[in-house]
Amino acid sequence: MPNGFKAIGLKCGLKESGRLDLGFIVSEKPASAAAMFTKNRFAAAPVVISKENLKKFSSSMRGIIVNSGGANACTGKKGIVDAIKMTQLLADKLQCKKEQVLVASTGVIGKHLDIKKIQSGVESGFGSLSENAWISFSDAICTTDTCRKIAYEEIKIGKEKIKILGACKGSGMIHPQLATMLAFIITDADISSNLLDKLLKNAIADSFNCLTVDGDTSTNDAVFILANGASNTSKIKEGDAAHKKFSAALLNICQSLAKQIARDGEGATKLVTINVSNAKTQADARIAAKYIATSNLVKSAIFGSDPNWGRIICALGNSPASYVPQKVKMYIGKILLFKNGSPTKFDEAKVSNYLKGKEIDIKVDLNIGKFSASVWTCDLTYDYIKINADYRT
Amino acid sequence: MPNGFKAIGLKCGLKESGRLDLGFIVSEKPASAAAMFTKNRFAAAPVVISKENLKKFSSSMRGIIVNSGGANACTGKKGIVDAIKMTQLLADKLQCKKEQVLVASTGVIGKHLDIKKIQSGVESGFGSLSENAWISFSDAICTTDTCRKIAYEEIKIGKEKIKILGACKGSGMIHPQLATMLAFIITDADISSNLLDKLLKNAIADSFNCLTVDGDTSTNDAVFILANGASNTSKIKEGDAAHKKFSAALLNICQSLAKQIARDGEGATKLVTINVSNAKTQADARIAAKYIATSNLVKSAIFGSDPNWGRIICALGNSPASYVPQKVKMYIGKILLFKNGSPTKFDEAKVSNYLKGKEIDIKVDLNIGKFSASVWTCDLTYDYIKINADYRT
Repeated sequence: MPNGFKAIGLKCGLKESGRLDLGFIVSEKPASAAAMFTKNRFAAAPVVISKENLKKFSSSMRGIIVNSGGANACTGKKGIVDAIKMTQLLADKLQCKKEQVLVASTGVIGKHLDIKKIQSGVESGFGSLSENAWISFSDAICTTDTCRKIAYEEIKIGKEKIKILGACKGSGMIHPQLATMLAFIITDADISSNLLDKLLKNAIADSFNCLTVDGDTSTNDAVFILANGASNTSKIKEGDAAHKKFSAALLNICQSLAKQIARDGEGATKLVTINVSNAKTQADARIAAKYIATSNLVKSAIFGSDPNWGRIICALGNSPASYVPQKVKMYIGKILLFKNGSPTKFDEAKVSNYLKGKEIDIKVDLNIGKFSASVWTCDLTYDYIKINADYRT
Repeated sequence: MPNGFKAIGLKCGLKESGRLDLGFIVSEKPASAAAMFTKNRFAAAPVVISKENLKKFSSSMRGIIVNSGGANACTGKKGIVDAIKMTQLLADKLQCKKEQVLVASTGVIGKHLDIKKIQSGVESGFGSLSENAWISFSDAICTTDTCRKIAYEEIKIGKEKIKILGACKGSGMIHPQLATMLAFIITDADISSNLLDKLLKNAIADSFNCLTVDGDTSTNDAVFILANGASNTSKIKEGDAAHKKFSAALLNICQSLAKQIARDGEGATKLVTINVSNAKTQADARIAAKYIATSNLVKSAIFGSDPNWGRIICALGNSPASYVPQKVKMYIGKILLFKNGSPTKFDEAKVSNYLKGKEIDIKVDLNIGKFSASVWTCDLTYDYIKINADYRT
């Protein structure tokens, strides 16, 4: 774990299944903090409170408290009171202001949290905070996830070392829109909250924002980063060598976590990467890739290993990106299926066989510019329906 | 059938299943014609040709030829040649110009049509054209549809009668965007093609354009209307009583057909109507309803009769419509579940029981204006995945 941080994940009884459901991260010293949140207009209470706290204490944040087993979204005024209470519980232990604590929740929308359970969780768990508990923290934030999602990078600045560690959760209701998913990143880099915010925004644009499972943006999406400077490396400044290295490492962390979410999409059996290249603008490349990645028809064909490539072209045809239909080339794996407005004479069995793999690449070459983008998604399966037909009941 | 029209549906061998796959409609006299087409930019060859023909002969159209078993989309120059050939085949029989015939295709994208089969179908079928064959025509245009979709209206103008008859197909790849689905409407009203076009556009805005099955707009969407004047009623003029009656009847036809498509959505077990009321603008009401109607999470919860209402509010929260979260009220059936930003104390068993029905109404009252809109959709089920995981193979 990066220097100067501790974490823990535990059971406090919010989940009927008895799985871990409460976690916190604390920094010894006040840390620079940045975060991005959902653009959903029914943003959850913890999103509202974390935003407010960040405005005041982005240069001296002490910790994050997060629960699964309840999203605390659409819960009215009581929801806000509960989210504040959560920050207070951890702040009392840390002997800091409650506004120096960030808060996040995930789970079913519209249910009030049982704050008493969280309170006894904080009481019993605070003493167990450890430098070796990132795994239990990562497990405690999961809902329908089938596996924990962790990413780690380290960079060398001269002889010193900066560590960056991330964890996230997400499996359904995944379609980050200018904001992103529930993810937590900690680093012992010494960096201002302003620069941290800038770097986080950039990294998210090419990672979490290029991710979709089912086209639904959650009410609780949030990515947090804390940087406590405990690596004892010199302060990272815009434009210096450390800035470049840190920025690249942060992007790696975010992309790794985003792909882990896509691979573990609800019911998913395959990780699907849609790459759109040679677009007129970056925005064109992204929107075209997103239209393909959100098509239920494309995604269920991939589940069935059916080389029904017409659906990919149809989805592209619905996107508002700039392109000339006659110039478009489309590949599944390395096999060219479509060019000059017509299908090629491809080997159907070969494509179908490729589609039976666990990692599927779809490439669309728009052939009119020089921008490209990748979007990660998964196939649409029976199990997605199973999970979501009775998530609550 | 409206006076002066004949139709037929038959097997010409395009479908391996041996089901009906070719149909045509002919008008004795040249008819006024109007149509709306998909906005998908990989529009199919028959869409391209029908558009061109309409530009030239919207006041003197003689017939429509349509095949299932192949969409003739993404088929390059040969696709265009094939679509023209189809119009020629019917025009030769009718002894009219090929531009006086409209053409439509539906089925798998990217496969070339077997024109010889269509040719022999026209040869053998033309003699069987009949005033009693609308049912076989309606069957011949189906693909994954599980039932035919027909609507009929008649209106009285003094002592005379105008008949309007419609048929459509559609089950998957249904998310009409400013355009719409494969639908055919014939009437013996006497009406100019200009006025017909206007009335069709209006009717579609409140019917086919308020329909979604899976969020994918097809490459082949088209609605055609032919009016041949054979009712011998006087010409319909803008603003007269007949205009009003005809307009209302046409809307009924289009809404009935649109609902039949939603009810028969691929794998669907339920017809779902999303009504958004008291919006600031008509566009706000529509976009809010569409966001809810396209949510996979909402639709799979409805399949499971799970009163997971938070997903409905979450989907609304992602829509760009104007609203104030605190003012929103949300109902499933007649049961109020959400107001003042919080859940009500509703009877969960009662809602779940309501959701077990075959027709589900979801109502969202935005409470800040006076516009409303309904969107029709269906639940998302195992069978949708089954149908689409191996549509081709």
